[in-house]
Amino acid sequence: MSGNTIGTVFRVTTFGESHGRAVGVIVDGVTPGLELSESDIQVQLDRRKPGQSSITTPRKESDTVQILSGLFDGKTTGTPLAMVLYNTDQQSSAYDHIRHAFRPGHADITYQAKYGIRDYRGSGRASGRETAGRVAAGAVALKLLAQRGIRIRAYTLRAGGISCAVKDLDVIEKNPMRACDQEAAGLMVKRIEEMQSRGDSVGGIVECRISGVPAGLGEPVFDKLEAELGRAVLSIGAVRGIEFGAGFAIADMSGSESNDPIIPAGFATNNAGGIIGGISTGQEIIFRIAVKPTASISTEQKSTDDQGKPIKISTEGRHDPCICPRIVPVVEAMSAIVLMDMVKRQAALPE
Amino acid sequence: MSGNTIGTVFRVTTFGESHGRAVGVIVDGVTPGLELSESDIQVQLDRRKPGQSSITTPRKESDTVQILSGLFDGKTTGTPLAMVLYNTDQQSSAYDHIRHAFRPGHADITYQAKYGIRDYRGSGRASGRETAGRVAAGAVALKLLAQRGIRIRAYTLRAGGISCAVKDLDVIEKNPMRACDQEAAGLMVKRIEEMQSRGDSVGGIVECRISGVPAGLGEPVFDKLEAELGRAVLSIGAVRGIEFGAGFAIADMSGSESNDPIIPAGFATNNAGGIIGGISTGQEIIFRIAVKPTASISTEQKSTDDQGKPIKISTEGRHDPCICPRIVPVVEAMSAIVLMDMVKRQAALPE
Amino acid sequence: MSGNTIGTVFRVTTFGESHGRAVGVIVDGVTPGLELSESDIQVQLDRRKPGQSSITTPRKESDTVQILSGLFDGKTTGTPLAMVLYNTDQQSSAYDHIRHAFRPGHADITYQAKYGIRDYRGSGRASGRETAGRVAAGAVALKLLAQRGIRIRAYTLRAGGISCAVKDLDVIEKNPMRACDQEAAGLMVKRIEEMQSRGDSVGGIVECRISGVPAGLGEPVFDKLEAELGRAVLSIGAVRGIEFGAGFAIADMSGSESNDPIIPAGFATNNAGGIIGGISTGQEIIFRIAVKPTASISTEQKSTDDQGKPIKISTEGRHDPCICPRIVPVVEAMSAIVLMDMVKRQAALPE
Amino acid sequence: MSGNTIGTVFRVTTFGESHGRAVGVIVDGVTPGLELSESDIQVQLDRRKPGQSSITTPRKESDTVQILSGLFDGKTTGTPLAMVLYNTDQQSSAYDHIRHAFRPGHADITYQAKYGIRDYRGSGRASGRETAGRVAAGAVALKLLAQRGIRIRAYTLRAGGISCAVKDLDVIEKNPMRACDQEAAGLMVKRIEEMQSRGDSVGGIVECRISGVPAGLGEPVFDKLEAELGRAVLSIGAVRGIEFGAGFAIADMSGSESNDPIIPAGFATNNAGGIIGGISTGQEIIFRIAVKPTASISTEQKSTDDQGKPIKISTEGRHDPCICPRIVPVVEAMSAIVLMDMVKRQAALPE
Repeated sequence: MSGNTIGTVFRVTTFGESHGRAVGVIVDGVTPGLELSESDIQVQLDRRKPGQSSITTPRKESDTVQILSGLFDGKTTGTPLAMVLYNTDQQSSAYDHIRHAFRPGHADITYQAKYGIRDYRGSGRASGRETAGRVAAGAVALKLLAQRGIRIRAYTLRAGGISCAVKDLDVIEKNPMRACDQEAAGLMVKRIEEMQSRGDSVGGIVECRISGVPAGLGEPVFDKLEAELGRAVLSIGAVRGIEFGAGFAIADMSGSESNDPIIPAGFATNNAGGIIGGISTGQEIIFRIAVKPTASISTEQKSTDDQGKPIKISTEGRHDPCICPRIVPVVEAMSAIVLMDMVKRQAALPE
Repeated sequence: MSGNTIGTVFRVTTFGESHGRAVGVIVDGVTPGLELSESDIQVQLDRRKPGQSSITTPRKESDTVQILSGLFDGKTTGTPLAMVLYNTDQQSSAYDHIRHAFRPGHADITYQAKYGIRDYRGSGRASGRETAGRVAAGAVALKLLAQRGIRIRAYTLRAGGISCAVKDLDVIEKNPMRACDQEAAGLMVKRIEEMQSRGDSVGGIVECRISGVPAGLGEPVFDKLEAELGRAVLSIGAVRGIEFGAGFAIADMSGSESNDPIIPAGFATNNAGGIIGGISTGQEIIFRIAVKPTASISTEQKSTDDQGKPIKISTEGRHDPCICPRIVPVVEAMSAIVLMDMVKRQAALPE
Repeated sequence: MSGNTIGTVFRVTTFGESHGRAVGVIVDGVTPGLELSESDIQVQLDRRKPGQSSITTPRKESDTVQILSGLFDGKTTGTPLAMVLYNTDQQSSAYDHIRHAFRPGHADITYQAKYGIRDYRGSGRASGRETAGRVAAGAVALKLLAQRGIRIRAYTLRAGGISCAVKDLDVIEKNPMRACDQEAAGLMVKRIEEMQSRGDSVGGIVECRISGVPAGLGEPVFDKLEAELGRAVLSIGAVRGIEFGAGFAIADMSGSESNDPIIPAGFATNNAGGIIGGISTGQEIIFRIAVKPTASISTEQKSTDDQGKPIKISTEGRHDPCICPRIVPVVEAMSAIVLMDMVKRQAALPE
Repeated sequence: MSGNTIGTVFRVTTFGESHGRAVGVIVDGVTPGLELSESDIQVQLDRRKPGQSSITTPRKESDTVQILSGLFDGKTTGTPLAMVLYNTDQQSSAYDHIRHAFRPGHADITYQAKYGIRDYRGSGRASGRETAGRVAAGAVALKLLAQRGIRIRAYTLRAGGISCAVKDLDVIEKNPMRACDQEAAGLMVKRIEEMQSRGDSVGGIVECRISGVPAGLGEPVFDKLEAELGRAVLSIGAVRGIEFGAGFAIADMSGSESNDPIIPAGFATNNAGGIIGGISTGQEIIFRIAVKPTASISTEQKSTDDQGKPIKISTEGRHDPCICPRIVPVVEAMSAIVLMDMVKRQAALPE
């Protein structure tokens, strides 16, 4: 059934499997008149693509985007933008051993249960490669948001048990972890290489900050801004939790501590993470997500085949030992898609 | 704009303000032929209503539901169920002091920014009373799910800094905290009464377990089961975070620890919380949410009026010092609405 | 399933059966700050209600609307408007004879096939009374559109085989047919009374003109303005066809005849009916609908019971011998709902 | 904004402009396990493509479809089917003269009004070429429907003032008009060639019959089967009206004539066109549409440029003098998309 679309007015529909012909996306509801080129999209896709460092998979996915529609004379026309990335470097035979076997931590078993059929090559539709379409769509939203002064930056806050201080957002693209602390990033890489050499992987925490959001975005009741952001981000494969502002720590606060005092300049604190009652306050929006360790590890694990017979399985292949650095642009893309939708929904309100 | 509807096939639309004439809900997509009466709804509403114990607000909201449509001879007909609860016991004058003032932690300031107008009485549409419609709709979903052997139980896991062991789910309705541990519940109540006497409030953590879910529910890509549950639950006013299965703790695990081994009987562990790749595994679905302390406290706080002038404000009135016990049925209702929608979406898949 | 909602941004959801407790509607996405009272709604409902003349059913439906939510200090707040009309004067026992029988031309047989259960009293959800919710929602849209200079007027163009000239739109409310020609209206009434005395009913054609629509409304490709208007109007019970501008007559034209020449002032003709490529041209929007004769007639007809056994059936009771005059406000309401949605969708475009 | 998607559960999203890189479609909600190949799609596209006879445009559009996703081992997997047709044979320079001019009967002027920018080459998104995506999606629906015994056949009923008898549906593909009467088809072609030689074009009427539909499909209230079919078909560029069953002729009938008597075998007549109360009766569904003459004619016409200055314009180029034969597969495709959606929605009802 149809779960491949997100957004109400700014609408994004993705398609494609890891080892099919292509992955891609249609973005409907794009503001007409935006100057846009494939390089605007490519720059974001390059942040997501594999092979960026020693701690990302050495798979070669060219990830070269083609814009098929919606552009004329270098500008958007208001009609759907279709963007496609053809798949290359597919070593499909590497997946023959899971034709009838399920890998722990992977969607092999649930896709089989749901559909009764599955494209087992490279996880098919459940592959991280599916996020390329999201990033392409997000790049459009990011460009539209930037025109309004809205900026979205995600970064690795913790990985392999090592935390960062939120020191300097300008270093994020200067280390392979996309961490906000160069020193901690170095320790993370070391830890991850160690785990990888043992055939294992690590998880982490990614934080996202959105600045320049005007007060008043978000749609109560069910489409609250945190509900829509939460849904968008929880729809990324490896994400197992999300918290806004003070997050789970708020459970142990008192009301007098957690309420953010209102002052003439705005708010004295930001425990709310920039959203109250589902609507933006004008402060920075802050949330954090829990990222699970990469499920594909070469360590041998217990599993079953599709007849329920016990087997041992290890996932050789080429996989990221930590998904955090590559999930960063995906989190930014999903946030941008939600915010752009909310900007448009708000524009319709007073009419 | 239109953020008051949730669900694709089983669709729920709520309406109403705290101090307007009524709150209520329309449920569209109800299975025809279900035996249903107002008492099926009322039993859930009674779990949500105020005045249940010393630690819930003594406000008297009759919360008596009327079913206006969709029933014939005691059975659903497949047409929309409209349910309404008229408002009574409204002390609207108690809110005169916030006509031009914003309360910290409340949506007063954001509704004003968004709409340029707000019903300030009892928080208007942003009131917790809005959740009565959700609970009424959820009661219908719960009854349909029960026929399939799906059971949803939420409970307070932590409040005021005191945690429960998950001892016995059968005691949940036997203590005013809706906690799963009678002893801890007693300590929580004591702690909350103490905070209340100081004019303050506390937050907490609520956990939800859903059993009997068959493998195969949930719609990749954007409508993953955890994304839809996450959105539904994050749309409840006081919720600031959600985590599934091992949750944020998974960030510090290795892949070999976090992957749930597959065994002939199912899975050896449940770090995934019953969902992989956005689709149910057949295991118990488990998630936890962070609940912020009640924003309404009698302690004096810094704020501004609607002209930006600094003021001091304290919220007298009748408020819950801890929202956890009353949020429990709302979490169950939202979960039921999502699951019922997914059951119907799955039914459409093989056709 | 969920077919009771229309609109993307300005969204309308109706509920209720003819002989249940109430019928009503929720309107979501209403512009905040609109001055609105129950009398704004009532004036439109009074045009739809039965008992207005000798040729409408003498049933007494009070059709008194209550606004339950979404209003504060006489203004809309941007939250959902819920409106309800309680049912009275229900002579349900009059329908006992169709508990197990199907009336020709009625939805008895199809509801039974679809749902396996039906509220047979007064046609249940398939009753014309369902349109009260539409008219209430339309009244809100009409008021918002009027502020922008958009005016919608429908009228009976033909009934019982008698046609009107489109003489004077100001006489529409001055004759019981809501025809645009007083003289023809008199002939129609005479013809209808004659048919009614024979236990029969008549059909007709209703035309609708929408003026003041700016160029640029409507959303290609699938949500073209004529497609959305067509869907909205074809969803009214008795409507069997719709044509825009020159309509079916265009089939016999040549391109050089049918193309409307563009002139500096706009267009020289209006064969397009005010819409080209799914987008308004700025001209008057014109469409016509075919209205079938009332299915409920006292003449004896062949039918079967719900076991397939042949029976003879005649529908006594109190029914309109021609539905045209009462369908006029419903057509206006549906048109207003579509246009208001399009206005809001266009407002979101340039953002 | 987002008007490029149709369907609730079986969802179709098209993209592409006439002279952009490609046109195409994503179909979400496809039943998994369907055997499908590109030739299943191509056979329908070949019926839509130009250059099929003397009375269709000699433009060479290769119209070769590629399926990019959603297939594995020759079967659908339940994930989105993306299908793309690259554009070739584009003589874009042929459109330089309308860069700043509006053609009568074309969407040039309305796209400019709506978007403030337009791809003027070959009508851009408003081109008939957009329907290739619809036909590709429809081919999938047609194959799924055929498995259930549902068959959809459209044909030209009237063109250039010449009518057919509905003699033999098996001759439809045997004449260039796709008419149901070989003799009338010959007369039509002669008439069209004559008009074409005068630089003019003709309109017509297309009829569609859908057999094998079980009773019970369609969703009251707003998503009635005729409303959804009407919307889908009215969204095709040249369609100016639609009527079901007896259609506009029903306006002159009496109730005793128009009501279809119910008999043990079903119904004695089919004035309703197979739909009552928005739900299928189990009879054949029949509707007719008015098709306007092709707007592109070489006869000189009055128009203005985009500054409002009067001009004379004639559309040379390669255009169909009568669109009926090529609209036939588009009508079938749109009908199939609606019916497939309704089949899936009905499957979700009893759950």
